[in-house]
Amino acid sequence: MSTKVNITENRIEGALKRIEVVRNQLKQSQTSVSELSGNKTTNYLQLQGSETQSKTSGGTAGILPRERQKSTFNVEAMIHFLNGGKEMTKRRKFIEKVISEKPEDITKKNNFTREDYLKEGVREFISYHKSFANFRPTRKDIFFMSETSYGGGSLNNSHSIFLMTIVGQGSEEQQKFWGPKVLSFQITGSYAQTELGHGSNVRGLQTTATYDRKTDEFILNTPTLQSIKWWPGCLGKVGTHCVLYAQLIMDGQEKGIHVFIMQIRDEHHHPLKGITLGDVGNKMGDNGNDTGFMILEKVRIPRSYMLQKYVRINDEGKYEQVLKVDSKVHYFTMMSTRGMMVGVSGARLAQACTIAIRYSAVRHQGFVDNKPGVSYLTDENQILDYKIQQYRLFKQLANAYALKLTGIWMLNELTNFESNTVGSAIKTEGLKEIASTSAGLKSLCTLIAVTGIEDCRKCCGGNGYLLSSGISTLSLDYLWQITAEGDYIILSLLTARYLLKCIASVMGGKHLNGVVEYLNIISSDGFSLEKAFPGNAKNSVEYTHLDYLVELFKYRALYRNVMVAQDFNEQVGNGMKFEEAWNNCANDLLSATYSHSYYIILSNFVNKVKESKHDDIVKVLTRLVILFACTNMLDDNWGDILNNNQFKLINQTVSNVMSELRPDAISLVDSFDYPDKCLKSTIGRYDGNVYESLFDAAQKSVLNQTDPFDGYKEYLRPHLNLELLKRGNKPIQPTPKL
Amino acid sequence: MSTKVNITENRIEGALKRIEVVRNQLKQSQTSVSELSGNKTTNYLQLQGSETQSKTSGGTAGILPRERQKSTFNVEAMIHFLNGGKEMTKRRKFIEKVISEKPEDITKKNNFTREDYLKEGVREFISYHKSFANFRPTRKDIFFMSETSYGGGSLNNSHSIFLMTIVGQGSEEQQKFWGPKVLSFQITGSYAQTELGHGSNVRGLQTTATYDRKTDEFILNTPTLQSIKWWPGCLGKVGTHCVLYAQLIMDGQEKGIHVFIMQIRDEHHHPLKGITLGDVGNKMGDNGNDTGFMILEKVRIPRSYMLQKYVRINDEGKYEQVLKVDSKVHYFTMMSTRGMMVGVSGARLAQACTIAIRYSAVRHQGFVDNKPGVSYLTDENQILDYKIQQYRLFKQLANAYALKLTGIWMLNELTNFESNTVGSAIKTEGLKEIASTSAGLKSLCTLIAVTGIEDCRKCCGGNGYLLSSGISTLSLDYLWQITAEGDYIILSLLTARYLLKCIASVMGGKHLNGVVEYLNIISSDGFSLEKAFPGNAKNSVEYTHLDYLVELFKYRALYRNVMVAQDFNEQVGNGMKFEEAWNNCANDLLSATYSHSYYIILSNFVNKVKESKHDDIVKVLTRLVILFACTNMLDDNWGDILNNNQFKLINQTVSNVMSELRPDAISLVDSFDYPDKCLKSTIGRYDGNVYESLFDAAQKSVLNQTDPFDGYKEYLRPHLNLELLKRGNKPIQPTPKL
Repeated sequence: MSTKVNITENRIEGALKRIEVVRNQLKQSQTSVSELSGNKTTNYLQLQGSETQSKTSGGTAGILPRERQKSTFNVEAMIHFLNGGKEMTKRRKFIEKVISEKPEDITKKNNFTREDYLKEGVREFISYHKSFANFRPTRKDIFFMSETSYGGGSLNNSHSIFLMTIVGQGSEEQQKFWGPKVLSFQITGSYAQTELGHGSNVRGLQTTATYDRKTDEFILNTPTLQSIKWWPGCLGKVGTHCVLYAQLIMDGQEKGIHVFIMQIRDEHHHPLKGITLGDVGNKMGDNGNDTGFMILEKVRIPRSYMLQKYVRINDEGKYEQVLKVDSKVHYFTMMSTRGMMVGVSGARLAQACTIAIRYSAVRHQGFVDNKPGVSYLTDENQILDYKIQQYRLFKQLANAYALKLTGIWMLNELTNFESNTVGSAIKTEGLKEIASTSAGLKSLCTLIAVTGIEDCRKCCGGNGYLLSSGISTLSLDYLWQITAEGDYIILSLLTARYLLKCIASVMGGKHLNGVVEYLNIISSDGFSLEKAFPGNAKNSVEYTHLDYLVELFKYRALYRNVMVAQDFNEQVGNGMKFEEAWNNCANDLLSATYSHSYYIILSNFVNKVKESKHDDIVKVLTRLVILFACTNMLDDNWGDILNNNQFKLINQTVSNVMSELRPDAISLVDSFDYPDKCLKSTIGRYDGNVYESLFDAAQKSVLNQTDPFDGYKEYLRPHLNLELLKRGNKPIQPTPKL
Repeated sequence: MSTKVNITENRIEGALKRIEVVRNQLKQSQTSVSELSGNKTTNYLQLQGSETQSKTSGGTAGILPRERQKSTFNVEAMIHFLNGGKEMTKRRKFIEKVISEKPEDITKKNNFTREDYLKEGVREFISYHKSFANFRPTRKDIFFMSETSYGGGSLNNSHSIFLMTIVGQGSEEQQKFWGPKVLSFQITGSYAQTELGHGSNVRGLQTTATYDRKTDEFILNTPTLQSIKWWPGCLGKVGTHCVLYAQLIMDGQEKGIHVFIMQIRDEHHHPLKGITLGDVGNKMGDNGNDTGFMILEKVRIPRSYMLQKYVRINDEGKYEQVLKVDSKVHYFTMMSTRGMMVGVSGARLAQACTIAIRYSAVRHQGFVDNKPGVSYLTDENQILDYKIQQYRLFKQLANAYALKLTGIWMLNELTNFESNTVGSAIKTEGLKEIASTSAGLKSLCTLIAVTGIEDCRKCCGGNGYLLSSGISTLSLDYLWQITAEGDYIILSLLTARYLLKCIASVMGGKHLNGVVEYLNIISSDGFSLEKAFPGNAKNSVEYTHLDYLVELFKYRALYRNVMVAQDFNEQVGNGMKFEEAWNNCANDLLSATYSHSYYIILSNFVNKVKESKHDDIVKVLTRLVILFACTNMLDDNWGDILNNNQFKLINQTVSNVMSELRPDAISLVDSFDYPDKCLKSTIGRYDGNVYESLFDAAQKSVLNQTDPFDGYKEYLRPHLNLELLKRGNKPIQPTPKL
């Protein structure tokens, strides 16, 4: 308590001191010649921010250190907790060291042309990976790489989805031949699935691979404009090879979609005969990636280029199955990618929170005593002290913690699945659950992250619109993840299908395990939704009980899934076609699935909190859990579950928890442990020297490299009144009293 | 009814025909030499889209014409309705003709560098306005200009906010001297208000203008890093002048913020002595604008450069008031700007809807009969037929109609206010209402538009991320409007303050008029919120009654404002400081204000619908009103007003109305009447030839102008296995069975 008072007193004293110094600066500025005159390339950062405002200092250097003094928990312990242990932190630090930019370069990309982006992306990616030459990364290491270096660039495709397809779909021989060549950049590759007219509905692809018995080859064609390969990264300019998704046609018969490997550029990096390649054009972000197109005209590849882990055409020209497994195993690559994207969603949102919360502590606006007559030299409020700003940012902070921990859980699930079940019998069952979970979570987590990052960005006001803020580029470069690898709507509907099936099998007497276990209650004796309701809270304190919150989220998932299942079955029972009833119920299915995924995220969050052995950490994490749950109840239309009275209680809880979290705000983002060179942000710097940094970056603007601007002579000068301009700021004659 | 059946039959027949043609194309493509080989610059658009898929046609040309046949209303009549009459349509067409790009150039800007953007912006703006030389635009004309040409570029600032400040704050002499020079581009100007450390809190600005009695001049300074002028458009590179907001200091006394005009660049377009100018750096969008910074060091301007409509320093050096009016009149410029932004919000959302809805009709994904074994040549579903897509897009369509009509109403209010009350006595009263209304509506409408545009963009999947889609650039170039001219949160809290005052004055016995009239009920005998509730609906049909919907929205506004007023008063009554209580209630204040603004929008929407004399138009507009209201009830947490049962009824209403609207979807966006050259979209074209257009734009990508890409030799080639690449797609030796 006494510490708190001291901090407040310190703050007031500090403010008064700063105002006094500004006053003196103002007096000086009217008499002395500035050190800035005519010096347009001053490096403001080298001049160092100090705690007093001056011509070279924003006067904000003391703010974040003061904030850090208020922390109620040990930041280092929290860092280890979030990374999964001290050893993991060490490993992450190692990767971070190799992969991040030099601190002085953090804003250079903001002035890049598209060509610069592509070139620099290739250079960076190869140089980093050459440093990792003798390092065999785990799934978690790869995740650390992804979270540290965003954008990624073109070759990211080669090392991830291209390579993973070879490993996932290729025979052992094919893996051995192609795999090492990819890893050492002897070849570079693209994942050529989508087409100009065809997206994630794989079965609709029109590219054909016609087997020619005479030559023992496939003839590859994109026979229509709509079938041009469209959007694969690394396809347009950088890739020498690709894995191609095409309809296999044998003896005039459709055999369905198969995957092939093929070379697309020769040793001079020119497209091979019959192949037209190019980039699809500039995008909102991710511009280091040569998202490409490809036209194929009677391109021939040998029979052995079909990836043949599961099926092949044998030496006798017969189509045959090689390995008999559940067809969904083919999707393990996709599931892994989606799982990785869940992890990345938490990382990106955490980065956005770091920038926005630090900036909101540094940025001041509005007077403490908001009355007319107050001098402009009076200290203004930290914008982080406005409750609306707190609500928006702390909500996202809680989301970020939730998503980070979900990501860790998801990566573990995938790793366990891979190591426990390859070759064993229980594969299929676990696979369905993990496929559905990863689809639903990918959908919801990218949605939460995209929305949250953008709201954090808006919380940064005008400066959040500048590329140098870092949060704008983060938002733009991340945006595509909500659409790629399965649009979020489509993926959630996949999960919805799984959930309806689960309900059907419970009704059929089956017992469910894992994340859908809560559905078993439906078939219990005397079940009704009303009876399952955990009851209304009697006071706002109940909304701080984690188990109660989990019960509520579980109930919402149960309620909405049962309701939509009933509705759907009724429609089908009345003779409606499956697809039509499905379409009719789609909005409710979506909401039911989100409720399910929210329940998974929340219950995992609660479990993780209970794992920590540090009381201070448990305390602050508990507050985040409460905020995560309660802001959802307020913003996500729980009108079907809770009544008006409950909303009032929840509001009260949120208000209390926000006040409790305020002193920890900066330490909670410090605990994400993203160094400045990773955030690449002028306004989210660790030291809080925001204004020095913004101004420094501005001077490097591409427009400031020439003056007058290009186009001045041709387009502006002819219209200007040069005679008037010659006079400068002198009273105008003959209008003396103007 | 029979027409409907015919259309369905036609559609099926058309689909079968198209499939047959694709089948033939596929056969041909395997035997004939393609006309495309080696021809990388084919103009696919010149080849014209046809109704059958081929190597040069996407086969989508018939889709939108078929959709248009289904329309239930006269599109031309709707166009006139939205423009405010036939004459207005004519006027808009005239402006559009001058101001829009040539159709062949619509995607060129997607490959622009920042320098190109700036240059082209200046060229365009001057050339358009030279064409309007003898044209005196009304407020509505200016609105038509804004809605037609987005981006606007640097000089937009000169002709709008710079000029408006001279007119609004300058004496008659000053207006006469500077005004015509701005209009004819003899000078160009910027509105220099915000600073590096200070945003919309005008009183906190630190730039000083110290009056020097000896020379009868002002000495201008930006004494600290935080006080550097930051963000004004047209300041960095293009402007020769600016209006400067600065603290006036006379004889050591602070006189508060005053506005000055000053020259910043000389006849060679170099900054004047003591002035440092530059651009603040690249942004997410709006990159034709040289958003700038300015350092001032002892810059002297004559006394007559202070804008002196209301106050001045007279010839005796005495500070005096010239015109005595309510201080809020100063803000009329800002109010007009905000009013204009309300209008633009509707326009931009309408443009986004046009692109997304046309694309969703053209784009197909997912099979009609979703079962394994279906051939890839089977016709897929229009994505517009998925209920989730409909919900998202039709909701925004309804929002766009609502916002467009709100914009018209707002512009009329401003025009009426201006013409009726200048110099009259009732000024102050009307002013407060219009100031509060324009602030609240600017906040809500830009929020609806920003969110809506971005959701429309997401509905376009991957292609919506491409700049050539037009909807991505629309989203990015529009985004800043939610922050500029008053951040949306701050503005809504301004309105909240006005509403609390209204409630207080009702309680004090005053009668309110205009948009706040509904609050009078509070002081009526025996008033209670429960009694004021319009009652629950008994069936879903009641949610199609416009008057009932208006009553519900009015009630929500009443309920939330009364609740927050009570809460606030209680806190203040318990001894809490005004600002602290205000901060505590901020979230609820925001929600109360939005409810108020939503009520204004809805009731205006309903009034406008009743004005139309065409039955078919009234019918379709009524459906949009219902959807506007009902989607808000579903998505905006009405749990405090409505119970679970009501949500079910509303869902049913929404589902019915969506089906009713489906045949009109394309005609409803056609009625916004934005030509292709204004939309600048490959995927939102009037003719629906989406794939030809996308591919055409892709070929122009800046990356496709060189091959191999810049950087290939230095960074990629050294790592590639050139020996392997020389072999091309041949079986690998010595691994024959690979």
